[in-house]
Amino acid sequence: MQLKLYGYWRSSAAYRIRIALNLKQLKYELAPVDLRKGEQHHEELKSRNPQAMLPVLTHGDRVFRQSMAIIEYLDETFEGRGYRLMPVELRERARVRAISQTLACDIHPLNNLRVLGALETRFGASEVQQQDWMRHWMHLGFAALETLLAENPSTGEFCEGDAPTMADCCLIPQVYNALRFNLDMLPFPTIERIYRTALALPEFAAAQPESQPDASA
Amino acid sequence: MQLKLYGYWRSSAAYRIRIALNLKQLKYELAPVDLRKGEQHHEELKSRNPQAMLPVLTHGDRVFRQSMAIIEYLDETFEGRGYRLMPVELRERARVRAISQTLACDIHPLNNLRVLGALETRFGASEVQQQDWMRHWMHLGFAALETLLAENPSTGEFCEGDAPTMADCCLIPQVYNALRFNLDMLPFPTIERIYRTALALPEFAAAQPESQPDASA
Repeated sequence: MQLKLYGYWRSSAAYRIRIALNLKQLKYELAPVDLRKGEQHHEELKSRNPQAMLPVLTHGDRVFRQSMAIIEYLDETFEGRGYRLMPVELRERARVRAISQTLACDIHPLNNLRVLGALETRFGASEVQQQDWMRHWMHLGFAALETLLAENPSTGEFCEGDAPTMADCCLIPQVYNALRFNLDMLPFPTIERIYRTALALPEFAAAQPESQPDASA
Repeated sequence: MQLKLYGYWRSSAAYRIRIALNLKQLKYELAPVDLRKGEQHHEELKSRNPQAMLPVLTHGDRVFRQSMAIIEYLDETFEGRGYRLMPVELRERARVRAISQTLACDIHPLNNLRVLGALETRFGASEVQQQDWMRHWMHLGFAALETLLAENPSTGEFCEGDAPTMADCCLIPQVYNALRFNLDMLPFPTIERIYRTALALPEFAAAQPESQPDASA
C-alpha cells in the first residue's frame, strides 16, 4: 500500500513525520500543502482532515492525522523495519511519549501559524511580540526538557538511549524552529548535542525543511 | 507498588488520569497541588516534574509525566485489568491517539492557566477576551472532532466502539471545560451524547472535579 504525506516544508509537525518515515526506511509520495497560501483549507486536505492541519498521512485508503499518532502507527505497522521508534520496556515507552508530548503539546501548538494569527487579530501583536511569545514557550519547554535529559541516565546519544526514537522525531524539528527564531540555545547543551548527533544521520538530514522540493529559496 | 497522583480538581489533564485510574480499577493516593496558589512551583512537585505542570503520577519510585503517556503506561502495565484503554487493532489505536491528541495538543494547551496569564501580562487581555480566546479554540477543535466522530462508523457509544478508551479520558474533561465556559454545544451533538454516556458510568462520575476532596465550594 502506498504512503502519501500531506506536508509543508516548514511545518515542524510534518518534519517529524519525514524523519520517522526515513528512520523506518519507508518510501512515500509527498503532497505539498502551502500553509502560507491557506491551502490546508482546500477540499483535498480538509476532506481528509477536518482540522485543516498538517500532517496527514494516507496509507492506501486509510487516512491518519496527528503526528505522534502517525509515528506510532508507522512503528507498529512496520515493526522490524528500520529503527524501532518506540522502546519495548514500559517505563522507557512512557518516557519517550512524555518527551514527545512536552514538545508536541506544550511548545509547538502555542507557536503555530494559526495561534500567531490569532494574537495579531485579537490583540494586535506585532511581529516582534509574536516572536517574543514563541521564544517564551520554547525557552520554558526546553529548560524543563534540558533538566529531564541531562539528569536522567536513560539519555544517551539520543533522547532515550543510543538510537533515535519518536522523541527525537519531535525534538529535532523544534530545535530547527528555535534556531530559526534566534532562541538562545546556550542553556540547553544536551538538546543541542542531540540535535547535532541526529543531523549527522542521513535519515534526519534528508528530512530537513530546506531539502524539501516545496522549499522556497 | 503504590500509585500516587499529583493533581488539582479543576485541572482537566489531571481529570483524564482520574478517569483512566478508575477505568483500570486502580486505587491511588491523591496529592492535591493548588494551581491557583502556584503550588506547582513548590519543590515536591517541581523535583518530580521540571515543567511544573500537572499531572504527575508516581508508581513506587518511578515518576511519570504527561497525561497521554501516563494513560498508555497504565494500560500497558495493567493489561487485562479493568477496561482496555487502547484498542488492539493498529488503525483503531491510531484513531484513539489522534482523537486524544486533537484534544490534548490542539485545544487544551492553548487554554490553560499559564497561557491565559501570558495573554493578560503581554497583551492586557481582559477576562472577557480570555474566555473568548478559550471558546474560539474549543469551538474549532470540537467542530473538527464532531465531524470525525459523526462521520466514522468506528464511533459507537464512545469515541471508538462501545467501550471507553483513552480518547474518552481526554474528551470528557474538555467538555467539562467547555460547559464551564459556556461554549455553545448545540453544533456538537455526538460529543454531547458521548459525554452523557460516559458520565453515566461510575468510573467517570467519581472522577468529576466537584467530587474531589480538594474541590472548593
